[in-house]
Amino acid sequence: MADISDISAYVRDLCVQAKRAADSLANAPSHAKNRALQLMAEAIRGQADSLAEKNRLDLDAARQAGLPSAMIDRLTLTPKRIESMASGIDVVRALPDPVGEVIWGTTRPNGLRILKVRVPLGVIGFIYESRPNVTADAAALCLKAGNAIILRGGKEAIHSNIAIASLLAQAVEKAGLDPGSVLLVETTDRAAVGYMLKADEFIDVIIPRGGESLIRRIAEESSIPVIKHYAGICHTFVHADADLDMALDICLNAKLQRPGVCNAMETLLVDEAAAAAFLPMVLPRLREGGCEIRGDEKICAFFPEAVPAREQDWCTEYLDLVLSVRVVPSLDEAIMHINTYGSSHSDAIVTQNYAAAMRFVREVDSATVYVNASTRFTDGGEFGMGAEVGISTDKLHARGPMGLPELTTYKFIIFGDGQVRT
Amino acid sequence: MADISDISAYVRDLCVQAKRAADSLANAPSHAKNRALQLMAEAIRGQADSLAEKNRLDLDAARQAGLPSAMIDRLTLTPKRIESMASGIDVVRALPDPVGEVIWGTTRPNGLRILKVRVPLGVIGFIYESRPNVTADAAALCLKAGNAIILRGGKEAIHSNIAIASLLAQAVEKAGLDPGSVLLVETTDRAAVGYMLKADEFIDVIIPRGGESLIRRIAEESSIPVIKHYAGICHTFVHADADLDMALDICLNAKLQRPGVCNAMETLLVDEAAAAAFLPMVLPRLREGGCEIRGDEKICAFFPEAVPAREQDWCTEYLDLVLSVRVVPSLDEAIMHINTYGSSHSDAIVTQNYAAAMRFVREVDSATVYVNASTRFTDGGEFGMGAEVGISTDKLHARGPMGLPELTTYKFIIFGDGQVRT
Repeated sequence: MADISDISAYVRDLCVQAKRAADSLANAPSHAKNRALQLMAEAIRGQADSLAEKNRLDLDAARQAGLPSAMIDRLTLTPKRIESMASGIDVVRALPDPVGEVIWGTTRPNGLRILKVRVPLGVIGFIYESRPNVTADAAALCLKAGNAIILRGGKEAIHSNIAIASLLAQAVEKAGLDPGSVLLVETTDRAAVGYMLKADEFIDVIIPRGGESLIRRIAEESSIPVIKHYAGICHTFVHADADLDMALDICLNAKLQRPGVCNAMETLLVDEAAAAAFLPMVLPRLREGGCEIRGDEKICAFFPEAVPAREQDWCTEYLDLVLSVRVVPSLDEAIMHINTYGSSHSDAIVTQNYAAAMRFVREVDSATVYVNASTRFTDGGEFGMGAEVGISTDKLHARGPMGLPELTTYKFIIFGDGQVRT
Repeated sequence: MADISDISAYVRDLCVQAKRAADSLANAPSHAKNRALQLMAEAIRGQADSLAEKNRLDLDAARQAGLPSAMIDRLTLTPKRIESMASGIDVVRALPDPVGEVIWGTTRPNGLRILKVRVPLGVIGFIYESRPNVTADAAALCLKAGNAIILRGGKEAIHSNIAIASLLAQAVEKAGLDPGSVLLVETTDRAAVGYMLKADEFIDVIIPRGGESLIRRIAEESSIPVIKHYAGICHTFVHADADLDMALDICLNAKLQRPGVCNAMETLLVDEAAAAAFLPMVLPRLREGGCEIRGDEKICAFFPEAVPAREQDWCTEYLDLVLSVRVVPSLDEAIMHINTYGSSHSDAIVTQNYAAAMRFVREVDSATVYVNASTRFTDGGEFGMGAEVGISTDKLHARGPMGLPELTTYKFIIFGDGQVRT
């Protein structure tokens, strides 16, 4: 990592480079951006051994620091993960270029032709935690959407990130684009983040990826707009009229298939009318899957292995093999529970009742609402958006999975022939 | 105005009412919202005399306080302005309902049907300065888009605003909707704004309308996302290949037709190659129109009535009969000047040169860029968007004129039949 004495000047210099790159990248043709993405993927494939070597520096430091094995696992660049970084870039290259798309237009009675055209946002400040593969994902998406990116990764991954970002910037330059399009903050000093968050003259948007406390801190400190990715406290509501076999599959998938991610189920709500039939089906299977059950009174009375849920459990994102379970008297109560305790991320109903399904999708105020499917599908790739830079829990600008169009803004272009206003 | 002792509790109570109203309004059918808008317009027309009477209280206070006549004029509700409030509501009623529009959708290979559907934002906090007609405009637009609104107007207009908002809320209730959909902060205590800006649990977005210092203060203080409407430092660049008669019409219109608004020209840039021909055409006419000229050295040498422009003039929104004028050596320099000193609001080139026009619209980083037309057209109505709640100088969520769709967000609705992720 770089030995940087004046962090303020260092960050400012990165900002100036990024802004200059963004100005030229905004008008770069698709073929030049695609050529850069192709060279980026080739560089990662070609330098897989050298990346693994740099990654070992991070892994050694992590072991010395006694980091938990789950974190060391996330930090590790296996050959398979390196290939998957490269193929992720290939996927982005194959997506249509969002820049220049005319998203609305009209010719006015006075002859003015008005076009609303997608343009890049400019400079994106991307602040993320330990997984080094995010470096390549985020850089590829931002570049495709015509934005320069300033990456600030976690300190545990600094050697890996420097190695990846340097390959990417070289590829960008080789494609004839400004290498300032992909920049990494090469110091782990926390002060650098502070300077980034105040650089509103240069950076157009901050996208943080990581734990909720990181994101809250950034949102509070930033004078630049932040697109937030808060917790996923995802619910599945098993309605009285559910197909219980389907409900079982969906619940097990939503909780057990990958419990550590934001679209995994954290709370199961069971309609009172279905409880006697469904609880004996689902709770033992969840326990077999290693899941701890934190239940309300009815759950604890029915299932002795459950522990009593405290109030705070209903608003906790466990990201682990723990599940809050509650019996609710009605659809109304389920919707109210979700809108009160949820995080507006992903929530599902399982039912064969048409009216209940329609009410649920209308009244649950979440970014993604499901009928008869696992919440685990909330993902740009699964939604057919090609790739995603994250999942927004905000309501402004982007909500839910954020793909390439969400990394753009627009301008109005007006062609006249001398019109004046009267 | 209300005598309110506990402002924190008062604002919180408004927030709770608005949130409850927003929840029910989100699912209100178009015909109910349109019926409310019809009754709102009828009430304003029917109570025109009583509104004028309440308005006199504000006007008397304004005269006693010695407010400038321009401000008293803006405060005055003439019969014509009252009718125009009502007809503004009629226009909004006639617009298509943005809520429920499916803006994207797909069926995935696994059979999941994914819809991206427009939904209301929720509760909008609207903070504005003296003109009381804004109360009706903003409330009508927010209601049509399914949002509850908490209005906080200027203290000079408090009696007028209370009278208008009360008529609107009654009309909403008469249409069978929650009267909490239109709420006004009935105290002029500045502390109320502070409490609004921290009510992120209830308010989804803050839209400020007014002077730049008001907006900056709000953006700094708010923990809720703010859609900003900063200055309009609008440029017109008269290119070497301009039709000079057309350029003259456009410049006079952009500067003189209504100098006090954000889309009026504040800086004129003249290509060196056109200066000798164009300056004698335009500068005397601007002076005749009462406009002060602040020029660079070349302008001052050519036109003795000009005063030398100081550096800060290039980044000043005069909103008055004052114009900065500069001779630039090239298109490049004009674009650089605009991107450096402008406010990314509205900028125009006058030229018959195709390549110059295309470069200008591509490289000027503004919300609206014009070829051969007056910047005065930047307006939701003029753009054919029906009506506008303001003109955003932000890049996120909304840029340029904000109409009904910009007062919404979206959710993803996913219909499955038992899909789980593998």
